[in-house]
Parts: sequence; structure tokens; C-alpha cells
Amino acid sequence: MVYQKISLQEGLDLQCGERVAPLDIAYQTYGTLSPARDNAILICHALTGDQYVADTHPFTGKPGWWARMVGPGLPIDTDRFFVICPNVLGGCMGSTGPLSHKPDSDELWGRDFPIITMHDIVAAQVKLMDHLGIGRLFSVIGASMGGMQVLTWASDYPDRVFAAIPIATSAFQSAQNIAFNEVSRQAIFADPDWHDGNYRQFDTIPARGLGVARMMAHITYLSEEALTRKFGRRVRNASQPSAIGNMPSVFFGDMFEVESYLRHQGSTFVKRFDANAYLSITRAMDYFDLAAEYDGDLTIPFKGSPTRFCVISFSSDWLFPTSQSRHLVRALNRSGVNVSFVEIESDRGHDAFLLEEPDFDRTMRGFLNGAAEHAGLTQGGIAHAR
Amino acid sequence: MVYQKISLQEGLDLQCGERVAPLDIAYQTYGTLSPARDNAILICHALTGDQYVADTHPFTGKPGWWARMVGPGLPIDTDRFFVICPNVLGGCMGSTGPLSHKPDSDELWGRDFPIITMHDIVAAQVKLMDHLGIGRLFSVIGASMGGMQVLTWASDYPDRVFAAIPIATSAFQSAQNIAFNEVSRQAIFADPDWHDGNYRQFDTIPARGLGVARMMAHITYLSEEALTRKFGRRVRNASQPSAIGNMPSVFFGDMFEVESYLRHQGSTFVKRFDANAYLSITRAMDYFDLAAEYDGDLTIPFKGSPTRFCVISFSSDWLFPTSQSRHLVRALNRSGVNVSFVEIESDRGHDAFLLEEPDFDRTMRGFLNGAAEHAGLTQGGIAHAR
Repeated sequence: MVYQKISLQEGLDLQCGERVAPLDIAYQTYGTLSPARDNAILICHALTGDQYVADTHPFTGKPGWWARMVGPGLPIDTDRFFVICPNVLGGCMGSTGPLSHKPDSDELWGRDFPIITMHDIVAAQVKLMDHLGIGRLFSVIGASMGGMQVLTWASDYPDRVFAAIPIATSAFQSAQNIAFNEVSRQAIFADPDWHDGNYRQFDTIPARGLGVARMMAHITYLSEEALTRKFGRRVRNASQPSAIGNMPSVFFGDMFEVESYLRHQGSTFVKRFDANAYLSITRAMDYFDLAAEYDGDLTIPFKGSPTRFCVISFSSDWLFPTSQSRHLVRALNRSGVNVSFVEIESDRGHDAFLLEEPDFDRTMRGFLNGAAEHAGLTQGGIAHAR
Repeated sequence: MVYQKISLQEGLDLQCGERVAPLDIAYQTYGTLSPARDNAILICHALTGDQYVADTHPFTGKPGWWARMVGPGLPIDTDRFFVICPNVLGGCMGSTGPLSHKPDSDELWGRDFPIITMHDIVAAQVKLMDHLGIGRLFSVIGASMGGMQVLTWASDYPDRVFAAIPIATSAFQSAQNIAFNEVSRQAIFADPDWHDGNYRQFDTIPARGLGVARMMAHITYLSEEALTRKFGRRVRNASQPSAIGNMPSVFFGDMFEVESYLRHQGSTFVKRFDANAYLSITRAMDYFDLAAEYDGDLTIPFKGSPTRFCVISFSSDWLFPTSQSRHLVRALNRSGVNVSFVEIESDRGHDAFLLEEPDFDRTMRGFLNGAAEHAGLTQGGIAHAR
């Protein structure tokens, strides 16, 4: 079995008025749910993430995307917490999405998959929690688009979230991020193998367009410093004879190391990700603007919330810059909720949340331990906290 | 006649060892060359710019790209200076490039156009100056890739440049900028109308790929602030009925204004720019790394230079950030040359150099007037200086 999943026949009514049924939710879990069912942590993945947080990915064979954060003795300690990570609605790793069948049909949704929003993605996760018998989550944690889900959980279901950790995220998708997503989409549409979204019928995928989209997005995940340190202007196969001094004779080959790296990113991505899912999820991100749903007042969704927040940003993240976290923190402060805010000094850009950043680990561990104490969690024992 | 140009039968020997012949250089001029031939200013255009600095573009019908900077009484005052702007070698507005014929052949160069460098681009401009009988230029001015040409002029021909103004540029193309250019190229290659570069033979152009490339590049020309102020999250046709609150029912249409704007940028660009020229020129930019040609020591090319420099950057430019201008200025200072440096406060990103920025105008005017005084220029009269 590749996917651990539930299939809910009643389906899900979406915000757009359409309905998907059955509702499949693929997910992974780590650790043990306490008898009091009070030690559950939901991890919400980012745009191209999936449920394989801490174990080997079944397709790529690579370690989980947050294997350094989630596990026994790690900041999200599976000796103590029960961790659940579902694939998002609209995704392509087993949850209902463009690769699923239309209700009572042999046809795949494909590009007809209905418009989904962050609210729909979270509503599907709520159904999973209901199924698992988890009323209140000890914590909901997510970075990037995962953070948008965290904020949606906290605003839509405040009584079900004890502690929320939105990381490297924003309460709204910025114009710049919409712009980058739109270029991604146009790159996919430009691919002749796109076939107006019906590529599966032609037994192909728009690999070139999706690859270009991924390459561009990947630049936005890194800082200029990170790219410079990682690759600089280093040239591949620089030992080969060159026409002009240190300039290789290859014109359109992957001359610079950074080019080769990006092409590799593009070509491996298309093997594991569906183009229609990419379109569906980027659109859900672009729609996201919590304040807009409350007449532009971001304090309203959080007023009187019992949830305690830890907002985390990274100093060199230019996709979801610290200014957007500060904007969120100001609103949370004005709402009168319990909020801490930490900007982690890092020169590795948005991707820093996936990387070894000791201050980040310390912040996560510290906040979770403190929140566990406030929650009166004993399962696994606070005494065991490292 | 669409292009004013010279055609030099002797051609040009390129750095890569190949040769283009004849060498055509299309250019525009403004103002009058003084009898002493000492009031000439060369303006070097950016990646997708052209020679139509200050008069109507023959294809688009739009005003010149720097019409607010170049003209009678403007900071680059054509009542006083003789301004020359050539289309770059490798370009597509009349100068020798991929749209030109191979020597003694009916065939177009197309994707076989030889590798060119900033040195080649400048060497072609030198031939134009020789043809016009201009020994020493009063000033060489350029922004972005234009600034790379300015630095190349100053390092390769120090005695022919009295004053150099490199704007919003760098002495090397950064890893991030190489990365963005590479995504542009991959977008073009992904287009089925690319035909491995031989699209003209198929009577088509890779309009979708080139459009995607332009859309992405355009994001890098603007700051996040500029995008937010210009478009924010505003939605097109917001008055139309919508399925979800303020969410329009169109899924893949140009829902947000910023999307519509980018698509427009992409679609108009492909009408005026050749894909092979885009590839050729972006590669020349990527190769650019002045220090690398001097064992990594950027002071060497400028040591003992008689040229005076005014380096200008814009605070919100993230494509050619101020840090890269500072890096250049430090090297110029160590070289012992005369250099001023101004960072213009602006929140409009890289494109600020094209826009109404009073501090920028003042800096240009002040530096040029000061330099003219030092040069002992009288033609047009310093007394006329506004």
C-alpha cells in the first residue's frame, strides 16, 4: 500500500458550491495518540510537499521533507506527540484532487477539478480529525502554504487548535507571489503536451512547462546569498577546453552549475507532481486573503481566540518576507491573543524552514514544550523533554 | 527607412574566434556634434531595449524608452550634447544579430549566431564611434545590461571615455540572475514553435515561450512594493457575479489585475523581439564577470584610468541590488579613480531607472554638468545649464 488513507463516501461540499465525493484523504502518522487524545499535532505541507514528513518517500526514495524536525527526540518529538500529516485536497499523493475520479464516473477530474480554497483544504483535514476521533489538536504547524492552512485552522476552528505555528507565511498571498504563480501557470499552458488539461487522455504530461514552472519557483525559494554560496558563477566541466578563456564552448548547454541544478530540479519534480494539481493548489494560494473575508480587518478572525500562536519568519526569505509575518503579528496582538514572534537570522531564503537552522529548532522545541506545559500534557512526560 | 545604420564590410572578429560580416550597426542620434567633437554621449541600452531612446518606436508607436531623460533641457540635454544610441550586436532592431544573414549566404544566422560577449558588443560600438569620427566620448551611460557595457568601455578603452555612468548594474552577473535567464531560455526551448531555433523556416515564432520568459523577467524588474501599489490583490471585472464572495468564478482566466498586466507584457513583447536575439544577449550577460578576466581582482581593469565614474543604484532594486554597486565602487576606490556613488531611494525596483525619480534626474544632471566643466566643454554653453 502506497497510501494510508480514508475514503469518506459523503464527500465534501466546497466553498465554490460544487461537491467532491468520495473524499479521500491520504496521510501519514508518527508516534502514538495518548489515551486522552490530547497530544496530536497536525502538520500542514507546502505547495509541492506531501504527507511523507518523516519517512522515505515511496516514489523518490528520499527521506521525508521534515525528517530533521519530526521524529523521536527531535523538536517535534514523536516520543511525545502524535503527528499527523495529510496530503492536501487538490493534491496528487492520494488525496482527492485532479487525479481522482468524478463522482459516479470513470472519468478523472483533470482540469475540471473544482476551484478549491484554503478553507476547503482545512475542511477536509477537519473530516480526517473527526474520523481519527481528535477533537482538539494540541498544535497545528505549517510553513509557506502550510502556514496559510494553520491560519485558516485557527480562524475557522479556534476551539480545535491549542497552539498554532505559522512559519514563513502570510495572511494573504502577495501580488508578487500571485505574479510568480501566474508565470508558472502560463508555462504549463504553453506546453503542447498540456492538451488543455486533458493530457492524461493523450498518455502524456506537460513535463516541459511544469519543469519550467518548477525551475522558476525554485529560484524564489532560495536567497541570492544561498545561490551565490551554493553555485556562484561556477562552471560545469570547467576542465574541458574552452573557446574563450574560462568560457566553455557550449552555448546553450547547462554551462553554469546553477543552470544544471535548476534543470535537475525541474526534471525530477515532473515525475512526482501532477500539473493540474499544481494549478489547483497555486490558485488556492492566490485566493488566500484572510482579512478580505472580514472587511479587511485581520483582527476579527482571531478575536477572543483561545489559541496561542508562535509566528516564525526567516530574515532572508523574500517569498514570504518578515514584513508579512509582522503584519500578521500586529493583527494578532491587536486581537488580544497570546502570540510570540521570532525572526530567525538565516541567509538561506524561504527554504530555510527545511534546513538545519539551530535557532529555528530551539524556537520550535521551546514553544512546543511551553505550550505542552500550559496544556497540562503529561503523556510521554514533560520530564522526558530534552 | 526604419533603421539609421552603417554597414561595415570588414565585419567584426568576435572573442569566440568567429567573425560576423558585414557588421551592421543601427543607431539613433539626438542633438548636434560640436566642431571639436567633444560633446558626444553614448547611451547603451538594456537587454530588451533598443536605439529608440528619445523618439517614437517605429513598431510599437510608443515614446522612446528614456524620453524623460534625453532631450532638450532634460538631464541628458540634447541642446548641449550629441547623443548616440546603437542597437547592440546580437540584437534584433537592425544591428547584426540572429536575424542577419550569414556571410555570403542567403541563410539567416538564427540560432547559429556566434557566442557574443560584452566585449564584442562594445567593440562593435567602437567601430561606430570610429565611423562617426568620435575619438573620446564625453560620457558613456547605461543601466542594467547597459551598465555592463559602460564598465566594459571604461575597462577596455579608458582613454576614450571621459565620464562613465553605470546605473543599476554590476561588474558581474549574479548566480540569481543567471538562474532567471536560464529559466527564460528553458521557457523558449519548451515552445514547440521554437523548432530548435529554426522557427523562421517554419514561418512561426516561439511566442508562448518568449512570452513566459518576458512575464517572469518583468516580475524581476519591479519591487514587491511596486507590484503591491500598482495591483495589490485587485481583481479584474470585480463587478461580475462571483461564485465565492469576492472571488470571481473564472478559474484560469486573468483573474487578478497583476496577471492581466503580465500577460499583456508577454504578448506585446513577442511582437517586437526575436527569441534568438533574447538567447544571444542573455548569454552575453551571463558571461559578464569583469574581475574574472583579471584573476578576480576588479581593481586591475580600472587602475590609472582617467575616466571619472558616477555609480548609481536604486534602493529597492533586487535584480541589481545596491550591494553589487557598492562592490564595484569599492573596487573603483581601491583603483584610485575618481568615483561618486549615489543610491537613489525608490520603492519601484529595477525599473526605477526608467521612471520619474527626481533624485535620479538631479544626480544625472549634476554629475554631467560637473564633468562637462572638468572637460572644458563649451559647445552649447555651460552658461545654458539649467
